[in-house]
Amino acid sequence: MKRKDFLKLGGLIAATASQPDVFATSKPQNPTGEVDFMHDGLALSPKEYAGLLMKLADEGKIKADYYSNGGVVEEMEAVFAKLFGKESAVFMPTGTLANHMAIRRLAGQNRRVIVQEQSHLYNDTGDCSQTLSNLNLIPLGLNAVEFTLEELDYVVKKTQGGRVETHVGVISIESPVRRQKDQLFRYESVKKIADYAKNNNIKMHLDGARVFVQPIHNNISVVQYCAPFDTVYTSLWKCFNAASGAVLAGPKSFTENLFHERRMFGGGLPTAWAFAAVALHFVNSFAEDYKQSWQKAETLFSLLQKDERFKITKFENGSHIVGLEVKKANAERFKEALAKKNIQVSAPTANGFLLKVNPSLLRESAPNLASRFSESLKESEM
Amino acid sequence: MKRKDFLKLGGLIAATASQPDVFATSKPQNPTGEVDFMHDGLALSPKEYAGLLMKLADEGKIKADYYSNGGVVEEMEAVFAKLFGKESAVFMPTGTLANHMAIRRLAGQNRRVIVQEQSHLYNDTGDCSQTLSNLNLIPLGLNAVEFTLEELDYVVKKTQGGRVETHVGVISIESPVRRQKDQLFRYESVKKIADYAKNNNIKMHLDGARVFVQPIHNNISVVQYCAPFDTVYTSLWKCFNAASGAVLAGPKSFTENLFHERRMFGGGLPTAWAFAAVALHFVNSFAEDYKQSWQKAETLFSLLQKDERFKITKFENGSHIVGLEVKKANAERFKEALAKKNIQVSAPTANGFLLKVNPSLLRESAPNLASRFSESLKESEM
Amino acid sequence: MKRKDFLKLGGLIAATASQPDVFATSKPQNPTGEVDFMHDGLALSPKEYAGLLMKLADEGKIKADYYSNGGVVEEMEAVFAKLFGKESAVFMPTGTLANHMAIRRLAGQNRRVIVQEQSHLYNDTGDCSQTLSNLNLIPLGLNAVEFTLEELDYVVKKTQGGRVETHVGVISIESPVRRQKDQLFRYESVKKIADYAKNNNIKMHLDGARVFVQPIHNNISVVQYCAPFDTVYTSLWKCFNAASGAVLAGPKSFTENLFHERRMFGGGLPTAWAFAAVALHFVNSFAEDYKQSWQKAETLFSLLQKDERFKITKFENGSHIVGLEVKKANAERFKEALAKKNIQVSAPTANGFLLKVNPSLLRESAPNLASRFSESLKESEM
Amino acid sequence: MKRKDFLKLGGLIAATASQPDVFATSKPQNPTGEVDFMHDGLALSPKEYAGLLMKLADEGKIKADYYSNGGVVEEMEAVFAKLFGKESAVFMPTGTLANHMAIRRLAGQNRRVIVQEQSHLYNDTGDCSQTLSNLNLIPLGLNAVEFTLEELDYVVKKTQGGRVETHVGVISIESPVRRQKDQLFRYESVKKIADYAKNNNIKMHLDGARVFVQPIHNNISVVQYCAPFDTVYTSLWKCFNAASGAVLAGPKSFTENLFHERRMFGGGLPTAWAFAAVALHFVNSFAEDYKQSWQKAETLFSLLQKDERFKITKFENGSHIVGLEVKKANAERFKEALAKKNIQVSAPTANGFLLKVNPSLLRESAPNLASRFSESLKESEM
Repeated sequence: MKRKDFLKLGGLIAATASQPDVFATSKPQNPTGEVDFMHDGLALSPKEYAGLLMKLADEGKIKADYYSNGGVVEEMEAVFAKLFGKESAVFMPTGTLANHMAIRRLAGQNRRVIVQEQSHLYNDTGDCSQTLSNLNLIPLGLNAVEFTLEELDYVVKKTQGGRVETHVGVISIESPVRRQKDQLFRYESVKKIADYAKNNNIKMHLDGARVFVQPIHNNISVVQYCAPFDTVYTSLWKCFNAASGAVLAGPKSFTENLFHERRMFGGGLPTAWAFAAVALHFVNSFAEDYKQSWQKAETLFSLLQKDERFKITKFENGSHIVGLEVKKANAERFKEALAKKNIQVSAPTANGFLLKVNPSLLRESAPNLASRFSESLKESEM
Repeated sequence: MKRKDFLKLGGLIAATASQPDVFATSKPQNPTGEVDFMHDGLALSPKEYAGLLMKLADEGKIKADYYSNGGVVEEMEAVFAKLFGKESAVFMPTGTLANHMAIRRLAGQNRRVIVQEQSHLYNDTGDCSQTLSNLNLIPLGLNAVEFTLEELDYVVKKTQGGRVETHVGVISIESPVRRQKDQLFRYESVKKIADYAKNNNIKMHLDGARVFVQPIHNNISVVQYCAPFDTVYTSLWKCFNAASGAVLAGPKSFTENLFHERRMFGGGLPTAWAFAAVALHFVNSFAEDYKQSWQKAETLFSLLQKDERFKITKFENGSHIVGLEVKKANAERFKEALAKKNIQVSAPTANGFLLKVNPSLLRESAPNLASRFSESLKESEM
Repeated sequence: MKRKDFLKLGGLIAATASQPDVFATSKPQNPTGEVDFMHDGLALSPKEYAGLLMKLADEGKIKADYYSNGGVVEEMEAVFAKLFGKESAVFMPTGTLANHMAIRRLAGQNRRVIVQEQSHLYNDTGDCSQTLSNLNLIPLGLNAVEFTLEELDYVVKKTQGGRVETHVGVISIESPVRRQKDQLFRYESVKKIADYAKNNNIKMHLDGARVFVQPIHNNISVVQYCAPFDTVYTSLWKCFNAASGAVLAGPKSFTENLFHERRMFGGGLPTAWAFAAVALHFVNSFAEDYKQSWQKAETLFSLLQKDERFKITKFENGSHIVGLEVKKANAERFKEALAKKNIQVSAPTANGFLLKVNPSLLRESAPNLASRFSESLKESEM
Repeated sequence: MKRKDFLKLGGLIAATASQPDVFATSKPQNPTGEVDFMHDGLALSPKEYAGLLMKLADEGKIKADYYSNGGVVEEMEAVFAKLFGKESAVFMPTGTLANHMAIRRLAGQNRRVIVQEQSHLYNDTGDCSQTLSNLNLIPLGLNAVEFTLEELDYVVKKTQGGRVETHVGVISIESPVRRQKDQLFRYESVKKIADYAKNNNIKMHLDGARVFVQPIHNNISVVQYCAPFDTVYTSLWKCFNAASGAVLAGPKSFTENLFHERRMFGGGLPTAWAFAAVALHFVNSFAEDYKQSWQKAETLFSLLQKDERFKITKFENGSHIVGLEVKKANAERFKEALAKKNIQVSAPTANGFLLKVNPSLLRESAPNLASRFSESLKESEM
């Protein structure tokens, strides 16, 4: 894909990134009432972002780091380590690098790595782990959210029977699964796989880019869900509104000196405080913000479904994404009508819309949102 | 090195990073008059940085990028491409990645890469090019600024005579050379090497992290100096005060779609506007700012040398670094005395101090600086 | 697996490797009448092998090579190139290296390589292609002989949709498939896949370690079967009785200078005439030898099936392997009884024996073999 | 280099490879009296080689191996392990692979490897270690036989001071040094370097392709010379006349399971008995054969120097190569005259000939050889 074509992908997203002044408290507020069903977080505009940085600096909350070590970066790492229930954590510039370095280091000499066939690591990283770290990524769970213990056992047994000795070193699990409507890899499944892994001397990594939305949907705390994993990554950019950045947590023996390898990859940003400080600002309230956002979304869905032309679909083991079918209406015109009322939704698919719930919902009441949906439906009737 | 030991390295630098409000114009001003002889640029504090971002956003100068493509990132790339005299340029999160990707891509199947034995690429990147891209970096110019055409020819000839076919694919030149007091690789030498390279089908890359200080010292414009190179990198962080970032320029055939490989390395920051906008802000005035800074430094040096206890040493083919010997004084106490007068210098070496000239000199007059040096000398007499 | 445990695997095979003097003609003869159903070829003993080399040297048929180039190695390469219908061929010390170098070179910058999930390349090479050449091998056809066009298309489409650009560069097909009882990848399937590959700028490689047994079973000549492939490898060790060795064929642009890369891998044997001369000796008569061997085997199977306690099973798209069920008998004792009669079979599986047909059958008549099977059955009745 | 050009290199060598029947005993004899000053060993013709294999098989000395494990391969390994004074040894198909696997495995995570700038590993392996194993080979001792402790210390210290953590993991030493007229790396130097290595947690590897000629020249036994090294390789092809092959010795912890990695590289020859048996045959008598050869050479050199037109030059720390200057004669015609008298020498260089002493000298008496040199000189006078 050419660079300019790639940019078109980001067009819609970039278009929505321009709301003023939401930072009086960490609870997002938006006088213009703009709400979107597209992002994991708040999609702050540069102006909002700069304003937040200014406020945090004024409050003395930003101690500069040195090559992504120390200062507010270290503070942020400590907070996330605790949230994951791990000993320590290290800042990474992107999730791509965080996942890559996790499996690279966990694998050691055992270079087969089990991944979901639908995972980001397997599909959307340009084969970084294979190209740069010579790992053999083995995909399981064809077009599925989870893979099964049977599939795993098949690969481990086959590996043992190869004519030249090789070993499975790591199992990487992504949850929620982006390519599968952010559905969750169930905790019961994780536990079974982790038991198997332990018995077979295999390490476990969690790609939890959006893992902090999970507890509302599966009633398992982040600490509990992460416990069976050796290492865990989450994005600072998705739920926590940093301009970029990720954090990778694990035992001290894993994270210590990882900054050298990060720099070797070209990921040792001279300073990263402008990312860490923002994530640190939002992390404390995210759990509560998202809980309220989801409650409001549930109210909204109830209101909508009073009209049979709206059909809300929840996905098996789903999380923050739901389906919205809009009957007897033109989907494109419906989307445009909503946009005029300060509500952004993604482009329609064959079966209607996928709505992603995020804290921008806190900017408006459920009844007000419901009316706007109804009005938009009216305006796009066929 | 442990992470906390590494941080000590950055201690002094971090300590100086806290001056308010310098952005009324891009010309740095500092009411408190703090001047340092340690940095390439202005070492902005988070507060100053956030303030500048706010100002730029208010002025409508920050259009957000999408995964480091488009928006103000694209604007910045276009400006740097022009300054280098190259067709195009691509943002990179760090110089380590910029240099690595340049030689990786230029090398293609010809995997021997000539580098200076004293270069950053050879010494300070954790062997990224060897470890991740399987390149064979061949060091020339032992403990020197430059290597010679004879050394180069020796390696090329020896390569041709090996029992298994290999090829030298790239020559990478760093100038100024950080590990050699930022002395310059002379333009005459570059030209000879480039001619040889062309005749031998070898590509040329310039690690010009601080290349924009060169013209004042060698009377060769950046465009002219870069002309013999296929690709050129410069840092956005060093002279241009961005919190992080680099830019890699070259022909369109080289840069097109490079963003995919950047992302593969984990260097595709979701947004990079917070770096690009600041570099773009400073790039226009840097040449003039640095010219004036150096002129002021020359005046300062003249004033100082009226006292025979100050000895200024200029290095052969030197650039922004000079030596300062302080006779009949205690170097540590001299440094402390200066610090109390808002002048920061690096830790003394055996032969006195290395002073690096940067635009923070514009915050104070030469006579005022000279007096403070003299007073400090008095206070540290032995 | 420890080295000594690995050796146990080879025990049976080594045990059978000691028949004298079979070389009066290239048609194998064996005065002691030993026949085996275990090998692809004749499993020559060192003494037989040395005798054959001696004979060939006496006849002036062995011109020494120099680092596996020139001499009888070159003669052998020319013969195989012609048999495959390719422009040229290059000796390789092992099939593992031949397959690896083929896909490595064909892939170029397009580093996803489609393989059968059951292939040797995917399972039995210690992940050489992933570990040493950083390729991403994508397995298709779970526990099957073939993969489908649909599976292939799924991967190609998914590759096009990844967030970072990657490309499928090669499709490697193994036929017959060792891990699937040497069943054949059908020619019709190969053709469809090759058409798809051509339309998608994907190269094709054939792992034809035993491809020369195919024509008897699918009525497709080796030249015709190989035509849709860019490169083809076959073993010199399996059907052609060389002590080691392989040959990799393709267009001149592919094979030219491949010897440099072979040497880089440590596969540039100082001399290889002792392998090439023997393969060259057997290659001319193999097609006819195997044809007669199979006809004799068919006669034998007919004779055996007159007794309902013998059940011969042919596999779908099978080649030189058939199943033999032995009812109302103890399989281990049956095997021992056969061994006493100079007939070797592999260890029994749950469903009886797998018999592999090879030219050692030419050492005995079908009726004689049938009687020995019958007698052995009698001796092992339960 | 094109393949056919490469072959020209081997032309002379191949041309001499055709003497009959030398194997009545392991002591080489040659009725035709052909003597050469070009090889490390006897340059057996295919016919001689096959004859020797036949003889060894007849004597029951060749037990077949299985994928280069067990049988006569194991016997050979045991003998070489003892000769090196190491716990164990493993067959390798080539020296290129032996050296590569040694440093790859010794390095582990410490990926900087010190090599001689003039070594085979650095110049003549197609950069295998860099390309396939991502090691950083650092060349010391520019155009010299040895490198110094100071050079070594400079690199180790510089490595410690790099901005990203890296480690020197291995020092590889080649002795004799092929590119330096097979001069020896002195034992005293080896010991000093080994002490330094031990103190710095660096492993030691010896590329001793021709190490068995050393003891006659430096009075240090092979066991003593190898003691400071963790691993040692020697060629089976050079001094021991095998058609191909090498052996790599070290501690059991190193060699155990190395056969898996050998196979991964494509170096697991299905059978290697045809190499191992021949090396095993010659290894027992080589020390004595070479001792006698060298004594005869010394006698020859004394005889020659009676004529002042012959000048013999011995090299500092030299081994089996000496220089021969031929005054007042045409070098090319002198070479041709010798060839007619069954004496082969390599092509002349600017300063005359380089003569390599090997056991083919045992085929003729020193006085007879001396006369032929004198006659040839006469025939080529200028």
